[in-house]
Amino acid sequence: MATDFTEETAADAVTESFAPSTNPRLREILTSLVGHLHAFARDVELTIPEWETAIDFLTRTGHKCDDDRQEFILLSDVLGMSMLVETISNRKFGVATESTVLGPFHVVESPVLELGANIDLVGGGTPCVVTGRVVSVDRTPLPGAKLDVWQANDQGFYDVQQPDVQPRTNGRGLFTADSNGEFWFRTVVPSPYPIPTDGPVGELLIATGRHAYRPAHIHFIVTADGHRPLTTHMFVAGSDYIESDTVFAVKKSLVVDFAKVTDPAAAAKWNVAVPFRHAHFEIVMQPGS
Amino acid sequence: MATDFTEETAADAVTESFAPSTNPRLREILTSLVGHLHAFARDVELTIPEWETAIDFLTRTGHKCDDDRQEFILLSDVLGMSMLVETISNRKFGVATESTVLGPFHVVESPVLELGANIDLVGGGTPCVVTGRVVSVDRTPLPGAKLDVWQANDQGFYDVQQPDVQPRTNGRGLFTADSNGEFWFRTVVPSPYPIPTDGPVGELLIATGRHAYRPAHIHFIVTADGHRPLTTHMFVAGSDYIESDTVFAVKKSLVVDFAKVTDPAAAAKWNVAVPFRHAHFEIVMQPGS
Repeated sequence: MATDFTEETAADAVTESFAPSTNPRLREILTSLVGHLHAFARDVELTIPEWETAIDFLTRTGHKCDDDRQEFILLSDVLGMSMLVETISNRKFGVATESTVLGPFHVVESPVLELGANIDLVGGGTPCVVTGRVVSVDRTPLPGAKLDVWQANDQGFYDVQQPDVQPRTNGRGLFTADSNGEFWFRTVVPSPYPIPTDGPVGELLIATGRHAYRPAHIHFIVTADGHRPLTTHMFVAGSDYIESDTVFAVKKSLVVDFAKVTDPAAAAKWNVAVPFRHAHFEIVMQPGS
Repeated sequence: MATDFTEETAADAVTESFAPSTNPRLREILTSLVGHLHAFARDVELTIPEWETAIDFLTRTGHKCDDDRQEFILLSDVLGMSMLVETISNRKFGVATESTVLGPFHVVESPVLELGANIDLVGGGTPCVVTGRVVSVDRTPLPGAKLDVWQANDQGFYDVQQPDVQPRTNGRGLFTADSNGEFWFRTVVPSPYPIPTDGPVGELLIATGRHAYRPAHIHFIVTADGHRPLTTHMFVAGSDYIESDTVFAVKKSLVVDFAKVTDPAAAAKWNVAVPFRHAHFEIVMQPGS
């Protein structure tokens, strides 16, 4: 008999079960996955009750998913898998601005706004001016680059989380860089916030003594002709949780000083009141498609 | 800053996020799991579209689960994980009868039956007599051992899969071994059958060119005072798929000859018609609790 299941031969037996006609990439992925999953079970000598707990956890994670909630993405996030995949995908682009995770809140089309517009439709919190420039890796400015921006408010909530409190598209804007590749807009300094914890992923965080928070950040998706689209964040330097983001999305190069400004002339230039914060984000795009 | 996400440090960063208060076993399991999942993603250089496919697959697998269907167990089965965990749990019991997977059809309480009863409530197919003995590892008989038996019919379906065709508890029985540890019952030779393929696991089998079949078998859960409970199968020697069980549950030691018998005296002894099949299963139990 060809098959006699043993711990040592099991992963090979599974791999060999894939027919020669299997798509080579699918076979490569499944071979590695099965090898690592089997090695995991052997390493920890996974018990049957523990396996049952895992089956129940995965089942409840699936049942928590609906059109507005993606619990498997949250699970991937808190295990660092989302960030790992994002990093692998961008590993060849060393001089360009680093990428980070998309996150689950890019669910509303951002309104097209003029440079200088205020994406904070509510007021309150600490006013903030964001300026920056979009350039190619050789520092050539990229006029006409598009910047899709979204963020939580100063209480740590996105518009879609508070449909009765925040106006639709609060904290969102789609800007076009000017002829020098420069952009600027007004907003409010975002707040750290917890990821949703009322599901299995929240149970996992509690069981492992982890907090659920992300440090304050503003999301960007930047596109420019002839360049690779960039999905990233600008993190607020000094924010709580900047060293312990629960989804591991922080990269040093993406942490930006939100400097306090008290100069009335600067306030007048940007049409804000003093004191305000000013953050500058230089965005370097990788040529490609 | 303590945290700057890189491919190499990512798994450690996740592991370090678990608080010192984390249950040591949970920490051990998650540390190994995260290490292996990250190594998998790095090994195959998992792309963002592939990650999205995985999230979608897991989500749909969760949505397929309900009170009667456990798609995550099927997934574990076809990846060999169920059998691996079962084997690890029983690795220290070399001289005892080997275990194998429980499977998803042990969902009905088996009716208490007298030795010699026929668990085939329908007729048709090839009649079969199963005899055997339950002993301890030192070959001492175990009188009063309980044998919970269940099987598919000769068409490859369990009673619960055909509530309109098969009587309730067809193919099921709970027997008590006699004063010599011996047992015997009548049934029909079971048929190979496919696992359910109308879900994501079926898609996976199709994509990898795998068949969905299990070789013919009879399930046993055996319990005896002072001994470890045993979950196993008796496989029909020569069955189709005996070398390619889609859930990898076959062990050579569990493959039993279902010998053809044409002797009228033997038929009379067991109260069956000739020709019939006779299978004998010696069950060796490990002392323990």
